[in-house]
This record gives sequence, C-alpha cells and structure tokens, in this order.
Amino acid sequence: MNRESFAAGERLVSPAYVRQGCEARRSHEHLIRLLLEKGKCPEDGWDESTLELFLHELAIMDSNNFLGNCGVGEREGRVASSLVARRHYRFIHGIGRSGDIAAVQPKAAGSSLLNKITNSLVLDIIKLAGVHTVANCFVVPMATGMSLTLCFLTLRHKRPKAKYIIWPRIDQKSCFKSMITAGFEPVVIENVLEGDELRTDLKAVETKVQELGPDNVLCIHSTTSCFAPRVPDRLEELAVICANYDVPHIVNNAYGVQSSKCMHLIQQGARVGRIDAFVQSLDKNFMVPVGGAIIAGFNDAFIQEISKMYPGRASASPSLDILITLLSLGSNGYKKLLKERKEMFSYLSNQLKKLSEAYNERLLHTPHNPISLAVTLKTLDEYHDKAVTQLGSMLFTRQVSGARVVPLGSVQTVSGYTFRGFMSHTNNYPCAYLNAASAIGMKMQDVDLFIKRLDKCLKTVRKVQNKDIDNYDQTEDVAIEEMALKLDNVLLDTYKDASS
Amino acid sequence: MNRESFAAGERLVSPAYVRQGCEARRSHEHLIRLLLEKGKCPEDGWDESTLELFLHELAIMDSNNFLGNCGVGEREGRVASSLVARRHYRFIHGIGRSGDIAAVQPKAAGSSLLNKITNSLVLDIIKLAGVHTVANCFVVPMATGMSLTLCFLTLRHKRPKAKYIIWPRIDQKSCFKSMITAGFEPVVIENVLEGDELRTDLKAVETKVQELGPDNVLCIHSTTSCFAPRVPDRLEELAVICANYDVPHIVNNAYGVQSSKCMHLIQQGARVGRIDAFVQSLDKNFMVPVGGAIIAGFNDAFIQEISKMYPGRASASPSLDILITLLSLGSNGYKKLLKERKEMFSYLSNQLKKLSEAYNERLLHTPHNPISLAVTLKTLDEYHDKAVTQLGSMLFTRQVSGARVVPLGSVQTVSGYTFRGFMSHTNNYPCAYLNAASAIGMKMQDVDLFIKRLDKCLKTVRKVQNKDIDNYDQTEDVAIEEMALKLDNVLLDTYKDASS
Amino acid sequence: MNRESFAAGERLVSPAYVRQGCEARRSHEHLIRLLLEKGKCPEDGWDESTLELFLHELAIMDSNNFLGNCGVGEREGRVASSLVARRHYRFIHGIGRSGDIAAVQPKAAGSSLLNKITNSLVLDIIKLAGVHTVANCFVVPMATGMSLTLCFLTLRHKRPKAKYIIWPRIDQKSCFKSMITAGFEPVVIENVLEGDELRTDLKAVETKVQELGPDNVLCIHSTTSCFAPRVPDRLEELAVICANYDVPHIVNNAYGVQSSKCMHLIQQGARVGRIDAFVQSLDKNFMVPVGGAIIAGFNDAFIQEISKMYPGRASASPSLDILITLLSLGSNGYKKLLKERKEMFSYLSNQLKKLSEAYNERLLHTPHNPISLAVTLKTLDEYHDKAVTQLGSMLFTRQVSGARVVPLGSVQTVSGYTFRGFMSHTNNYPCAYLNAASAIGMKMQDVDLFIKRLDKCLKTVRKVQNKDIDNYDQTEDVAIEEMALKLDNVLLDTYKDASS
Amino acid sequence: MNRESFAAGERLVSPAYVRQGCEARRSHEHLIRLLLEKGKCPEDGWDESTLELFLHELAIMDSNNFLGNCGVGEREGRVASSLVARRHYRFIHGIGRSGDIAAVQPKAAGSSLLNKITNSLVLDIIKLAGVHTVANCFVVPMATGMSLTLCFLTLRHKRPKAKYIIWPRIDQKSCFKSMITAGFEPVVIENVLEGDELRTDLKAVETKVQELGPDNVLCIHSTTSCFAPRVPDRLEELAVICANYDVPHIVNNAYGVQSSKCMHLIQQGARVGRIDAFVQSLDKNFMVPVGGAIIAGFNDAFIQEISKMYPGRASASPSLDILITLLSLGSNGYKKLLKERKEMFSYLSNQLKKLSEAYNERLLHTPHNPISLAVTLKTLDEYHDKAVTQLGSMLFTRQVSGARVVPLGSVQTVSGYTFRGFMSHTNNYPCAYLNAASAIGMKMQDVDLFIKRLDKCLKTVRKVQNKDIDNYDQTEDVAIEEMALKLDNVLLDTYKDASS
Repeated sequence: MNRESFAAGERLVSPAYVRQGCEARRSHEHLIRLLLEKGKCPEDGWDESTLELFLHELAIMDSNNFLGNCGVGEREGRVASSLVARRHYRFIHGIGRSGDIAAVQPKAAGSSLLNKITNSLVLDIIKLAGVHTVANCFVVPMATGMSLTLCFLTLRHKRPKAKYIIWPRIDQKSCFKSMITAGFEPVVIENVLEGDELRTDLKAVETKVQELGPDNVLCIHSTTSCFAPRVPDRLEELAVICANYDVPHIVNNAYGVQSSKCMHLIQQGARVGRIDAFVQSLDKNFMVPVGGAIIAGFNDAFIQEISKMYPGRASASPSLDILITLLSLGSNGYKKLLKERKEMFSYLSNQLKKLSEAYNERLLHTPHNPISLAVTLKTLDEYHDKAVTQLGSMLFTRQVSGARVVPLGSVQTVSGYTFRGFMSHTNNYPCAYLNAASAIGMKMQDVDLFIKRLDKCLKTVRKVQNKDIDNYDQTEDVAIEEMALKLDNVLLDTYKDASS
Repeated sequence: MNRESFAAGERLVSPAYVRQGCEARRSHEHLIRLLLEKGKCPEDGWDESTLELFLHELAIMDSNNFLGNCGVGEREGRVASSLVARRHYRFIHGIGRSGDIAAVQPKAAGSSLLNKITNSLVLDIIKLAGVHTVANCFVVPMATGMSLTLCFLTLRHKRPKAKYIIWPRIDQKSCFKSMITAGFEPVVIENVLEGDELRTDLKAVETKVQELGPDNVLCIHSTTSCFAPRVPDRLEELAVICANYDVPHIVNNAYGVQSSKCMHLIQQGARVGRIDAFVQSLDKNFMVPVGGAIIAGFNDAFIQEISKMYPGRASASPSLDILITLLSLGSNGYKKLLKERKEMFSYLSNQLKKLSEAYNERLLHTPHNPISLAVTLKTLDEYHDKAVTQLGSMLFTRQVSGARVVPLGSVQTVSGYTFRGFMSHTNNYPCAYLNAASAIGMKMQDVDLFIKRLDKCLKTVRKVQNKDIDNYDQTEDVAIEEMALKLDNVLLDTYKDASS
Repeated sequence: MNRESFAAGERLVSPAYVRQGCEARRSHEHLIRLLLEKGKCPEDGWDESTLELFLHELAIMDSNNFLGNCGVGEREGRVASSLVARRHYRFIHGIGRSGDIAAVQPKAAGSSLLNKITNSLVLDIIKLAGVHTVANCFVVPMATGMSLTLCFLTLRHKRPKAKYIIWPRIDQKSCFKSMITAGFEPVVIENVLEGDELRTDLKAVETKVQELGPDNVLCIHSTTSCFAPRVPDRLEELAVICANYDVPHIVNNAYGVQSSKCMHLIQQGARVGRIDAFVQSLDKNFMVPVGGAIIAGFNDAFIQEISKMYPGRASASPSLDILITLLSLGSNGYKKLLKERKEMFSYLSNQLKKLSEAYNERLLHTPHNPISLAVTLKTLDEYHDKAVTQLGSMLFTRQVSGARVVPLGSVQTVSGYTFRGFMSHTNNYPCAYLNAASAIGMKMQDVDLFIKRLDKCLKTVRKVQNKDIDNYDQTEDVAIEEMALKLDNVLLDTYKDASS
Repeated sequence: MNRESFAAGERLVSPAYVRQGCEARRSHEHLIRLLLEKGKCPEDGWDESTLELFLHELAIMDSNNFLGNCGVGEREGRVASSLVARRHYRFIHGIGRSGDIAAVQPKAAGSSLLNKITNSLVLDIIKLAGVHTVANCFVVPMATGMSLTLCFLTLRHKRPKAKYIIWPRIDQKSCFKSMITAGFEPVVIENVLEGDELRTDLKAVETKVQELGPDNVLCIHSTTSCFAPRVPDRLEELAVICANYDVPHIVNNAYGVQSSKCMHLIQQGARVGRIDAFVQSLDKNFMVPVGGAIIAGFNDAFIQEISKMYPGRASASPSLDILITLLSLGSNGYKKLLKERKEMFSYLSNQLKKLSEAYNERLLHTPHNPISLAVTLKTLDEYHDKAVTQLGSMLFTRQVSGARVVPLGSVQTVSGYTFRGFMSHTNNYPCAYLNAASAIGMKMQDVDLFIKRLDKCLKTVRKVQNKDIDNYDQTEDVAIEEMALKLDNVLLDTYKDASS
C-alpha cells in the first residue's frame, strides 16, 4: 500500500489507527532494508509475517507476476498448477542464466535478488560457523556429490594434463562417484589406525603426489565429516602438501558446518596451506530438504569460475529453502542449534558408553570425530556372523533410523573399484561396530528412545541365541515382536515417548 | 519494500531490472488504491498475488502483528496454532467493538479496514444485482435466520407493544424459528393456489393487520426465494400495505441476490411502499462457506441501529471470505455467474420437462419462481405411499444432493406450531412432487448427471413394483444396487461422468 | 491409500519399506481412532501431519467434496474462490441444520463429525479447567455478548412473565447490551467497596428479587472475569439465592476458563445452588480468532434447548479453530499455558508493585481478582485532570495494547442507561487507576516491555508538567517523541527488545 | 481413518451419512490405486482434494514423518522451518541414493514411490506426445544444460578415446557450455541457408566424423527446438550417420515436447538410425518452475547408466512439481494445452505477417520451425545501427518479455570460442530480425498485447528518426513514454487489456 492508499484508509477508519498501522509496517520494512543493505543474517529470526511480506515483494518483481506482462518467448514462467505456483511463492524463473548460475536475470529481478541475498546470507553463516576468511560461496541446487563433480570439472580446464585425484579413503559412495562421474581416476589412500581412530596417512599422500607427478594430479580430495572410527582428515598437513606441490585441494565438508571442529580445520588449512574449495550439504547442515549444496572458497575468482561452469538456469528451490530457514532462525537461532548439537553429542556419548559396558562392549575412543560415535559389537559378532546385520534390521523395524551396523569383512565393488572391509574405511578394522551420530536438530528424546530400543534389541538378540539363527528370519522376529507388543503394550508407550 | 530497500536492491542486481520490478509493483498498488478510494468491486477480478499482497498489508496494521507490540489486556489477538493464524491471514481481532459490529477497533486498523471495505463492496454488488437504491448494508457472521432474529429484536425497541409477526407461510424451519427465537408470535397466512403456483394471500394479510391492530404487529415478514410451487411473495403489494398501516417490513431474501427477479421485487417494493430491511445469505448467493448474511436496507439510520444491536465483537471470517471472493471474481465475474445461472435454469427446466413427460408426470407451471422447479410424482404416489420417500432416499444414495421429494400429508410441529402438508407450503397441495433448483455455480454436468440418475431411479422404482414395498427397505435397495453396480460397472461410469 | 494401493506400491519400491511406511500410517490412524472413540482431548498435542490428515479425511466425507456428486439444491457447498476453499480445509457446509445448531447434516457427514468432536473436546477441557460436573456444552459462532442474548431468549420461553434481569454492575458494554438486545430491562445492582475491592452486594440482589417478584425476573446475570478492582461475583451466594427463589442464573464467564479460581466459583455455585448456563469466549480463553463462544451448563436438556434456539446453520470456522488448537496443544499443552499464565500474573503483580511505589502510587489490593490488576494514578490525577487520559494515549502510541486508564468522573450513557464513573464499575471509586492483565499466552517479555514503556511514559508526563497541558495534544506528544526517538535510537532498541 | 474410526464416527453422527462419506472416500482411493497400479497419467485431471490426499499419504510413509521415529544418523530429514516443511508437503529426503538417483531409499518409502510414479507418468506423457517407442526416462533436478553434461560424462566411460563432440551450430550458451563443462571440445558445424531457413549441413557433419575418426568423436549433439530462422536439425539423417559410424547421438530437445513435429523427428530418428538419449526441460514443456529436465532414451540400460552417474541424492522438488502438474491436468488437459499452442502459433503467425507488412517488413518463411517465428527488421536496421537494439529495449520496458531482437554483426566469445553473428546461428544472416514464439500456455491476449505494443514501439522508433539517435538513451525513452502515459492514460488501458 502506498501513500494514497493509506490516505484513503484514513478516511474509512480513524487516521490515528491507520497511522499506527502504517508505523507498524515500517518496522517490517526496516528489517527488510537492513537485510538488503547489509546482506547479513539478522541476529534474531524474523517472524512469518515479515518473511512472507518479503518473499511476496520479491516475487512481484518477476515478470511472470507483472499484471501487464505479455510473454512471447519460449520460457515465460507460466505455471499450469496453482498448487505449484503457491508452493514456490510464485518464483518460477529459477536462478542464473545460461552462462552463469550466479548471473542476474532480466526477466526476474526478484528471483535474482533472492539468489544474491541467499548467497550473501550463507557466506555470513559460514564465517560465523568458523571459516572467517571465506571469500565467496554460492548455493547450487545439486547434492554434495554432484557439486564436487562440478568442482573437478572446473579444475580440468586449469589442469589439462591431470588424470588422478588423490583421495584418503572414506567409504561413502557418492563422494567416490563424484570423481568417477567427472572422468578422473581416484587414487585411494588407505587410512592408518591410531588407537581406535582411522586417520589420514600423510606420508602415503605425499609419496603418491611425487610418484604420479604433481601435474598429473587434478587435486587432493579430502574429507572432514565422516563416520567414526574414521576421523576428519588432517587438513592442515594436506593443505601444506598441496601448497608445496602446487596441487589444488577440494574438501568434502558434507555435514561439517555444524561442527566448529570441522570448520576450524578448514580455516586452519587455508591459513597455513591451500584449499581451493570446500563443499557442504544444505540439508545436513541447515535442516532443509535434500537437494542443495554450498560451494565455498578462499579465492573469489575461482568460485566464480565454478559458478560459470554450471550450464543453464537452475532450480531456486534450495535457495528459497535456506533463505527462509536462515531468516526464520536468525544467526542466534542457528548458533543455538549448534550449541544444542554439541550438548547432545556429549549426552549420546555418555549414554552409549553406559549401555555398551552393560553388554561387555565399549565405546570406541575417537576424540577427533566431533559428530559420529561407534560402539563395538564384538560379543555379538563372535556369537554368530549374522547377528550384527540382524541387529541393524531390528533397529530399522523399530523405527530407529540412521543407526548403522558395520560387520567385518564386507566387500563391495563401486564403479569397478573393489573395497575390502567396505563401510569401515579400512581393509581390516579390528571389530564390528555400530554407529550413531549427533547431528543438528537432534533432541534428547531421540537419544533416549534410541538407547531404550537398542537395549531392547540387544536383549532380544541374546534371547534368540538358543535358536537356530540360520533359520531365524525377520518374519519370525516380527512375529515374536508382535506378540511382545501385545503383551507389553509397548506400542502405546512408544507413542507416548515419541510425543512427550 | 521502501525506497531504500529498492536502492539497496539496485546495488545487488541491475538497476534497470529492479526499476522494472518496482514499476510492476506499482500496478498492484494502483489496484489497491482504487479499491480503497472508490470502495467498489473492481470490474475485473484480481489475481491471487494482488489479493494476498493486499490482505498481508492489511494484516500487518493489526496490533497483534506489530513487531514491537506488548499486550497487557485480556484480549490481545494471540494465537496458539500457526495453522489457525495462517488460515485467517493473521486477522485475529474479528470485527466490531462491544458497542457496534460496524465500529472501528483501535487495536486493529487492518481488520477495521477489511470490515469497511467488505461492506462497501457488498453494497456495490447489491446495487449491481438490482436493488439500485439500497442505502446501507453490513455483513454479519450469522446465518440468515439469526440475522432475521436480530432485525426483529431491533424492531422491538421501536414498537414496544408489538407481539405478532405476520408471515405468509413458507415451509422452512429457520425462518419460522427466527421469529420464535426473537420472542414473537408468528401469525401464519396460508398461501392461495393460482394455477400450479402458491402465492401470497394479500387480502388475508391486510385483514389480519386490521384485526390485530397495526401497533400490535411488529412487522410483516415476507419471503422472496423459495421452493416451487410456492413463488416469491407479492412484495410490491405487501410493501404498500406496510406503508399504509405504518407497519415495518422485513424481507427474507435468503438466496435471492442471484435472481434479478427477486432483486427487482425488492427494488419495486421499496419504491412503491415500505421495506425496512432485507436479509440474504452469503453462502447461497456468493459461493462462500456457510455462516454469514447481509442485512441491507433503504434507511441508513435503521441499518446502523441493527448493527448496534449486535452485542460484542464478531468473527471476521465470513467478511474475509466474501472479500476474497468478490475481489477474485470482479463484478464481471459475478455477472457472468448470474448469467450462467439463468441459462442453467432454462436448461434444467427443459430437461425436467422432457423426462417428466416420459414418465407420465409433468413440470409444474411456476413462472414466478426464477430458481426452483417442481415435477409431479403423481404416478409414483398412486402406486405406493412410500414410493415418494423411497425415491428421495435413492437419490441421496446416488450422490444427488439437494433434490427434495415432497410427499402428501406430511405433518410437522415446529416450536409448538403444527403445519399440515409440511414442506409443501400449504395444507393440501394437489399432488406429491420433486424439487430441483438452479442455483449459482451450477454446471451443465450437474444437470446432466441429475437427469440421468433421476431417470435410473424412476426406472428402478418401477421395477420393484412387484415386490412387497412395505418390506422393502433402504438396505435391500442398497444390496440390489450394489449387485447392479458390480454387473454394470456403473460406479466407473459415474466417476467418468463426474470428471468429464 | 487402501490395501490394493499399498500392494501396488510394494511392486514399485521394496515391500519392506512400504510395509514400514504402512505401519507408520497406522500410528496416525490410531490417534484418530482414539479421538473418535473417546471424544477427549489427547494428552499430547498432535503434530501437523496427523492433524491435516484428520481434517482431510473429514472433509472428503462432505458431499461438496464427493467426486461424483451432483447438486440440484439451493445450497450445495460450492465455492467460487480456491483460496477460500483451502483456508476452510474444504469444509463449506457449516454446522447445524435449520432446526438446531448441534444437529447432524445429511449432506455433510464430515462437518457434522467435526462439530460433534469439537463440542466433545471442549467439554473435556472445561472439566479439566475446573468445572468437573458440567453436563453439556456447545460452540457457537457468536461472541460472548450475542451468546448471552441467546441464553436470555431461550429463557423467555420458559418464563413468559419475566421482564427484568438482575445484574451486578460490570462496566463492559457488550454484556449490558446482551440484555437490551434480548429485550429485557437490566436491573443494575451497584457493587460494594470492601478494602480496595468492588464486590457483589448480595443483600441488594436478594432484596431486588423480592421487590420485583421472582416470576418477573428472567434471571440473575453474574460475572466472573472482570477488570480490577472489581472482582468476580460471589457466585456461590448468588447461586443459593437463585435456588431459593427459583430464579435462573446465567454466568458471564467471558475469559474465566483460563483461571482456576473463576472455574472453581462456577463449580461451587452449581454444587450449592443454581447455575443454568455459563458462557465463555473462545478467543480470550483459547487463543483463537475472535468470533466464537462456548455455552455450557449443568443440565443437558437446557443446553440442548439453547442450541435449538439458534435458527439456521452457522459458521464452522470457530469450531474448526478451536479443534485445531486443542488437538495441536493437547491437554498437556493447555495445562502448561494455564500454569504459565498464573506465573505471569505473579510476575506482573510484582513488577507493577515495584514500579508504582517508585512513583508514589500503589498496586490496589485485589486478591479475589485472579487476572486483572490495577495501579493507582493518584499523583498524576491530582496534577492535572487530563494527565490520566494523556497517559493512556501515550501508551497506545508506544504499542502497548490492552492497558486501560480509568479516570474519575467519567459518565456514559449506554442504550439509554446512564452510568456514573463508567469503566470503574461504581459511581465513585476513590481514585483514578491503570489496569493491566495477565491473560493466557502472555510472555515475560510482554511484562518487561510494558513496565519499561510505562516507566518511560510516567517520566515523560512528569517532564511536561511545566508546559501548558491544556494545549498539550497528542500531535505535540508525537513530535516530542519523534525527536526523542531520533536522539535515542529508541526505535531500534524496541525492535531488539521485541524480538529478544 | 480406518474401519474402527468410521465405526466410532457412526456412533457420533448417523451411520447412513458416515457410510455415504466413507463411500465417497473410496472413489478418491480408487483413483490412487489406478495410478499406482497402471503408472499412467489419468485421462482426467484430479481435483486438489484427491491430489493432496495422495501426497499426504505418501509423505507419512517417510521416516521423518513417523510418529515414533528416532533418528541417530547424519541425515534424518529434520526441518527447521515449518514454512519449508509445508511447501514440500513434508517430503524432505529428496530422491535417489548415493549410488543412483533412481534408487529406492529405505528411510523414505513415500519419496521413493513419488519418484517412481513421476518417472512413470512422464514416460507415459512422452509417448503420448509422439515418441511412442521410448524405453525409459527419469526426471533429474538440473536444467537441460547440466543434464546434457551428465549424458556426455556417462558416454566418456564408454568411449575413453573420444575428445570431440560434433555440434550443428545453435546460438544458445548453455548447450554449448554443456560440452565444455563435460570437458570435451565442441566441433561446430555451420548451418546452411535454404530459403530463409538455416538447416543442418549433413555433408559437413559426415565429413567431420570421417576426418576426426569415429572413435575420437564422443557423440553428435543435435537440437530440435530453436529460434527461427534456424529450424530443427535433420534428425533422421543425423541418426543414420550415427548408426553407420557407430557414433552416439544425444538430442537437445529442450522445449520440443510441446511440438508434435519435434517429437516426430525424434521418433523417426530412432526408427531409422541411432539416438542414445534426448533431453528436455521440465519448465519449458510442462509449465513448472525452472530447474528440472527429463533424460529419456530408447535403450533402458543406457538410461539407467546415466541415472547411476549422478552421485548422491537429489532434490525431489522438480519431480513433485511435475507430478502435481500432470495429475492436475490429466492427459486430456495436457493434450488440450498442446492443441491450443498449435492454434496460437497460427494466430501469432498471421498477426505478425500482417503487422510486418504494414511496416514494409516480412515474416521469414520458416515452415520447419513449429514454435519460433522471425520478422525482418530491415528498414529499421537500415535507418540506424542502434535502432534494432533500441527496439528490444523498448519492448522490455513495455513488459513484453521473450521477444528477441537480433542485430547483424554481433560477435561473442563463449568459453574461448568466438561466434560471429552470434544469436543468429550463422556468421552472416541476410538481415536483422525479431523473434517471437508460441510456447505452451500462451494465450490470445498475449499475442494481442504483443502485437499492439510492437506496433506502438515501431511507430515510436520512426518518430525519433529526426532526433540524434546516438544520444538517445533509454532514460529519455522512458521520459517520453512517461509523458505519453500521462496524456493517453495508456497505463489504465494496459491493465484493462491485461485482465480482459
């Protein structure tokens, strides 16, 4: 509403009240102005009404929402379904132009602003999370793996001779495939066991660089966030090697923004050595739907080069999600989530320690891993070779998600490469184990429920020891369980637990 | 977004594009300004983005949406559920004040504006629909019946001696109860049969006024929209009687806004005689949810008196619904709906005529009723006294809603008054019949489906003639039908019909 | 999705996963079943996905949402605007039938269920809030005042001779008008001053009953929730009088559900004497939008009679709001809100005490009022007769809503009755004062902001003592304030306060 | 609601009504079952209530929506903002697994079903649109360019020696960059002029294949949809060359699904020769927001290989959009859109012909291009070399979007390659021209407004002939225009046009 509208309003109801309302409007506008001028995440989260006003204001700047627009091109932002238009707040043109995912679209000033502001806010948050000297970043509507691929494809143009990517082993398929998809040959560096921890074999890395010749190496591809007992790579030392041999360094920081330790490693690596880009998932760090990543780096020009490698426009959906989320939370809200995650990590750690000892197992000592924990499943594994996977299945059936059992001796072939001891990041880890993580947004009730159900499952597994486990199948387990449920009214307990 | 925000935006993306976006914003604002200045329904409907912008702008003028508000009263517009807040576009304070449902609320400039504008738009539409000289009106969040009660309660204060309301009979409970609830004694005037039509007995009305004494009569309570074969009351003549005897006149125009004939009757009545207020349903005339009515009249002061009789604040929900609806449709959209309704009336009329003749029945000749039609069920009734209600039940089961069968001889007592021939508006209508109406929003496929199903039901009823109908119950019918469905795949046909 | 759909799903993705998903569905269904079977508010609030599933399931049971429906009546639940349909979750038919607002609608099984369940839940909550022996209640889409009117109109039919309503004075317009609108003569009983409190003059009430003759008295109309220094009426004693003289008793419990004291008074009144109905606001007690009330009582038949007095269908909107709210909160959530309100009352009380003493004023001692507080404005009033209203205006401008200043000597005429000392519930209260209340949903930051702003306003008022206050108008105040704002950056502080 | 819930419902309201509601539910379920069983686009579009029921049912099968779930992984589908959760219908887990974008997720049965069904529906629609023998396809949340890159990256693994991609020139940056990004060297084949049309130089293509050696050629990369006067590539002949030399063939069918001609070309190409994959944009063909593409092909195994190349999970957002859109439209709705587009193409063609002749220009004769049209700007260009771009700018300012002016002699360097005559697909097209297209969803009012504004702009350009055009800038144009607007009230006209 403009001046004339307010004047008309004053004639309909009391001028004093309209003036008060008009004044109130200004405070929403003030927040929007601050955001646009500073490009920083507000300290306090916005309420929904400011947020929606802002999105609405942006959207009507896009040509598909012009009242008098006529479109005679091949892409005019028309939408067939009003449900779809509405769920995207009428942002239809996506982000970027054919040349550059960060470019401004003439047809869509609002979407372009949305894109710029989002990237600006995200940069602010990365600094806040610990990488203070980050120079530039952008949100890309692809998951972490494909975003890594895009980084490798960009490097290819700078290093035409390079064929290899040196990669300290981490048993997660998509980061392995990100290299294969980009057309490079991963050179796997096995980890070394230090105490319970699996750590980067720095010597092997350096030897391999020399052996292959630095020019033939596209980059070192290191990892921060990972499942225990693997721990984040020794980024500082790797960064120094990269600097010394003039080899690029791409860091897979998938869910590392939520950990000050991971972010600190990146900051330190960049300070003492070389890091070209670090890539992180939006969903895993910011509690948004799967589908976006942030590509960030310390050299503005290089990050821009990557953004120019993305051919064509792209979905604005992940950008919109993270924008809404950050404006809702505010930087204080995000900091609070980070703090709570840390506390939950300690809590989970203590609870797992207690439980494991009750079953003659132990919590692996992995102090360098700030997110994931591992508990041995030695006694279970000794009892029967199927017991470990059985436990995993039981947990799944009981609606425990994300707990991962790692049996010994699993072998898997991924894109032609064979990994022994797959899932455990090494050929022969000393024992089977179970992983659990404290990720952002975890609540105490998640931990409590998990511990309770794990306890129950471990008990059940023991009970069936006298049965012929080879013939023991999930169906039978379910049958037993169902009987138990009826007896104990466990189901109702569960709902109560879940909602309390 | 204000000037500074746009300036900041221009620094982020190209000034030319932002300027274009800003320009586009102005066209939305322009529409809003016109609305506030003129208070008329726009000719062309608004698109959703203008509408939501407008509602958003209004809502942030209410104190519950002030960013810096602190509330220390007993009613501060707080909302526990965000689902609820959202569905009301954050309008929480309702409309009106303790003294007057049309009053402005200091705490809620936005809701107050919404209320004023809505009433202004509705007034505009009533004029457009045919009552050109209407002076004032307001939306009240009560159904037609309770709104009539409010009118009667207001009149009580002006006519302390009055005990009676003269009411040409119409067999609809809520308008009868509206008088009872207000504490008056309805004086029922039986209708006279002219051809097939049931019309107002003017002589009986006038005689009754004289008999009771005008001062003892609170008002004449007449009706426009009604089920055939009753037709709208003779409003002109009644209005003249009211003027002559100085007796108020309240018109129940429940679903009459959709018919130019009903509206014309009111306009004429007011021109030649006396009409104090006419009351119409929001849902029946404007395709919004049940729950609101419009109280309108030709004397501004009297309408204001009624609005001041409503003690306390009231729900803004019906006002919001009609506002959204009228702005979406525009006056052209509403006119189009009126035109289509008229066409559907002819179509339904023709189809019913054809079908009835095929079954040796006939369409009653009721030219004064512009909405409702009636088809005799003579042969059915003659065959068996339960057959008529059976037909009604069968239609219901087949998802025909709103078709009403009227058997002979039904007697009903409402609030102590006994009505013979209830539902037929007279003690002894010559035959049983079936009603169907062409109401606003009806589509050709409604008519076609109805005719098809009615045909099928009439056939089925004939088929069961040889059975013992006394023992024939709905369950059996359903069983037969279910069998039939399986055989004929009728169900699938139905879906196809429904969506074609 | 039904059995066949799940089977088809299992062929598309793994059966184990679909089974797990299907199992998960059952837990939502379980909650819904419990609700329908027990009719009680769940202890723990439902999450949005269960809630929306439930509403969706109900809505598709209404004929306007049948895929194969054809409508040939005058009211078929058609909706012109999809925005409107959506915001009502596609419940269009409202609640009730022409005869009875609690009646089941054949066309709308879903809406009918919604209505029944809502009333059942609300009954459960009223018990939980302290009126354990309540027999029946229903939600009515009218504010408290109009709902009281409906109660009086119902009583009229039982007490045809009665003309008067005995009403211990409370200075709130809508409850006064509720009697006028119903057509009765209010007999105002002045309150007596006990300490600082204004309490019911029981003797005067009883004398008046005798004087008028019990048969001429429609009812006693008492009040629980009110602004201090008035306190809730002596319900027990009034109820005994009603029982003794066989006079009905209607209690205005507008915002009393939130206070265990008010609810206890009603429970006790009904135990030892007579209470026919008690009426409470939905918005003031349950944080939903304005527009609904609950009419409750101890005699099932009488409450049904009232529900049958409402002529015609009614808006389902308030019922939907309260249903969503109660299911979201659960009884535990509501209890928590009640507990927090009590705590805020203590906190507000302490803060006001401190502040008032700093300005040589005092908190009135009103221990019987559990919601509202009053602080004297003696020194202010002595200084200048406009100073008190000036303070009110200043608070309003500073976005303090709900604080009410009560000057001495205000006279107001409502519907022909003149009230001296209007707003103070008595002709001559000893001093001017300011009201503030702790209502449900109040937060500590509301209290803190209020105290801070009140402090600032009191200071400002003192500062302008040397000015000519007769010429001091709001405009000037605003000018001064605006200057001050620029100097102190108060505005920014305010935002920070508001969002911290 | 399950059987028990309905039973409980029957006790609350009439069993007959609940049964009717329950029956109605079955018809929604029936549609869902058909969809899951057949995997085809329903003929008639679903209404919103079936659609939302379906999405809701799917969503509650995902573990993040389990009521009793406890998550201890690093990715648990938690969402910080309820606005975000809601706009994704609570689908948070995205689609695919680390290994394969088409893989089923154990944690997310609902999202997995969504993904499968969407791909199945899309396959059905591609067949319907003309490529009857398509074998497999999948939706990928990347724009056309990046999707082409993914195809090239997949081919790399099958053709390790290949370095070149043979590419008949089309002046659109993202398809050029798609090859660069994938790390290949584009070999540009200039088009030949036949009449006004620019067509594939088949001889040059074949010669180049021979010259480079088939094994060194990754693929031929052809294009269907393009701006006139370029026309779709000669797919049949190219496909035959590919078959003969055993070279893969990737078709950029960006916005070709909407044209039966483009689809026919692909179908024919595959029949007589070789097409490995064809890629199309979601937004340009299906009126959804930017951000998704469909990769389709005739060899199931190859399409699966591509889907396995995408490393990691991906956004479900584009899949959700297309699913909602197709279910809303139904295949009949989509066919209707295709039909209307064709009609609009004729209409636009006629209108442009008339207008161009009035200005001594002509519509280029490009019968092979079914979507885009071109009008010469010869007289304009002859008059002044800036006049052509000036026209473009003027159209933009007047809210004509998508009209593209192509001046002569533009040179542009993209990723190191220099294109002469850029935008015109050839080094020296005979004249400057203007493009306009008839894309899906275009309305007659778009055409009319465009013709009107183009007319006005052409007039204005002529008027300024006497001015010094070198100093004529956009600002001045705007100034003139603004003056004009005030005089003519053009703005109001515009709104009327826009909404009529």
